Amino acid sequence: MQPHIYEKQLKIPHYLGDRYRRITLPHLMNVLIEVSGEQTEEIGALSVREHGLSWVIIQYDLEIHRIPKTDEMIKVKTFAREYNRIFSYREFEVYDENDQLIVYVMTVFALINTNRKLSKISPEIVEGYGSTENRRIKRMPKPEVPKNIETAQHRKIQVGYFDIDTNFHANNSTYFIWMLEALSDDFLATHEPIHGNIVFEKEVHIGEEVDSYTELATNEEGQLISRHQIQVNDTVKCTGTFTWKES
Amino acid sequence: MQPHIYEKQLKIPHYLGDRYRRITLPHLMNVLIEVSGEQTEEIGALSVREHGLSWVIIQYDLEIHRIPKTDEMIKVKTFAREYNRIFSYREFEVYDENDQLIVYVMTVFALINTNRKLSKISPEIVEGYGSTENRRIKRMPKPEVPKNIETAQHRKIQVGYFDIDTNFHANNSTYFIWMLEALSDDFLATHEPIHGNIVFEKEVHIGEEVDSYTELATNEEGQLISRHQIQVNDTVKCTGTFTWKES
Repeated sequence: MQPHIYEKQLKIPHYLGDRYRRITLPHLMNVLIEVSGEQTEEIGALSVREHGLSWVIIQYDLEIHRIPKTDEMIKVKTFAREYNRIFSYREFEVYDENDQLIVYVMTVFALINTNRKLSKISPEIVEGYGSTENRRIKRMPKPEVPKNIETAQHRKIQVGYFDIDTNFHANNSTYFIWMLEALSDDFLATHEPIHGNIVFEKEVHIGEEVDSYTELATNEEGQLISRHQIQVNDTVKCTGTFTWKES
Repeated sequence: MQPHIYEKQLKIPHYLGDRYRRITLPHLMNVLIEVSGEQTEEIGALSVREHGLSWVIIQYDLEIHRIPKTDEMIKVKTFAREYNRIFSYREFEVYDENDQLIVYVMTVFALINTNRKLSKISPEIVEGYGSTENRRIKRMPKPEVPKNIETAQHRKIQVGYFDIDTNFHANNSTYFIWMLEALSDDFLATHEPIHGNIVFEKEVHIGEEVDSYTELATNEEGQLISRHQIQVNDTVKCTGTFTWKES
C-alpha cells in the first residue's frame, strides 16, 4: 500500500525565527505537527478524540541539512508509511524552493486513553493514511544522556501558563526550548544542529519545576554532540542528543 | 490624506493557542506585527534599516471584544493614519468571519538609530503608508503600576536564547508572557482580558534576570484589573495594565 502523502507550501513568518532569522527548532516542530493535523482533516480520519483517545509523540529523529530561514517558502511533505500495534511512524520532509530536501524528521506516535495508558492502534484508526501494518517494531536509536548529572550544565525553569497546550501538559516543542537553552546563549549563537534525537518519557505539568541538564562531548565520528536530560524532581521526563556544527 | 489599508486573511494555527484553543496574546501581537511587515513590503516603503534606523514599539493599547480561537479564519486590517516628529501611530483591526470587529489595537512606534537614540520621522519614511502629519502628540493613557512592589505577586524569569529577536533584545511579545504569567496559572485559566495597555520603557537583554510584579485591583467602573511592572535589577523595563472578565 502506498501512503497518502500530504503536501503544504508555506512562508515562514518572522515571529517563528531566532535572532539570525532561522526558524527555531521548537517552532519547526510546531509547523510540522500542524501540517500533519491538516492531513488528518483532509482525509477525514476517524476522530480518535471522540473515542476517548489521543495521539502522543514518543520520539523525534531529525536530520537537518539546513535550517529554513524566516520569510523563506518551504514545502512540507508528510506521510505515515507504517504502524504496528503500539506505534505509528510519521515522516516529514521539508524542501526548499529548489526542491532540495533540507530537513527530514521521523516521528513515533502512540495512542493513549483517558487514563493515559497505551491503547492498541487498530486498522480503522489509521485508515485513510494508507499506512501498512508491519508487526516488527522499528528499532529507533536511543538518545545519549549526560554521563554525570553533577557536573552537567544545568538550567532550572518554572513551567508557565503559556507552556501548556490543549492536552493540559507542556507542549512537546517546549521541551526543545528547555533542552537547548541549558547549552547557554553563546553556544546556540555560534552552533547549528545537524541531527537531533529526542525521546519523551513523561508529561510535564503546570507549576512544576524543570531541571534541564546537558553535557557536551565528541562522538565516534569526531562530531560535537550535546546530551540532554529533563527532570522534574528526580523523574526523567525527556532525553535527547543533538549533533552540532559551527555556524 | 487617506491611509493605505492593508488587509490579510489568515487561519490561526493550533500552535499559537493556549490550552483552551484561544490564540495567546503574545502570539496575537506577533501575528499583527507580521501583517504590518507585509504592508511595508507591499508598498515598497523606504528601508529604514538601510538608513541605520529601526522601528521600535513604544506602546500597545488593546481592546478585546473576543479572543480569536485557533483554526478560526480572521481578517486583519492595518493602517498608519497619523505621525508626528517622534511617533507613528499604527492601528490594527481584527475581524471574524461575520465581519465583526473582535480586537482593536493602537500601537505607537518610534524610530531609533544605531546608538538606540530616537530619530526624527521624516515624510519620506512614512511615504506610501498615506500617513498624515499631525504635530500634536496624541495623549495615550499610561498604565497603572503596582502600588506596592513588596506585596505584589512576583515571578523571576531567566531570559533565554529563544526570547531574543533580530534586534538582539527580548521580543515585545515576550514581555506579555512575563507580565501575564506573574498572575498565576489559576487566574489565567479562569479569566480573559478585555483591555490591555502596555508601555515598553527599556530593552531586556540575553542573560538578564527579569522580575515580573503584578497586583490585582478594582477600577472605578468596578472592573477587575491587574497592574504590572517588569524590572531588571531596579530598572523598570515595561509597565502594563489589563482589565479582566471571568471566562
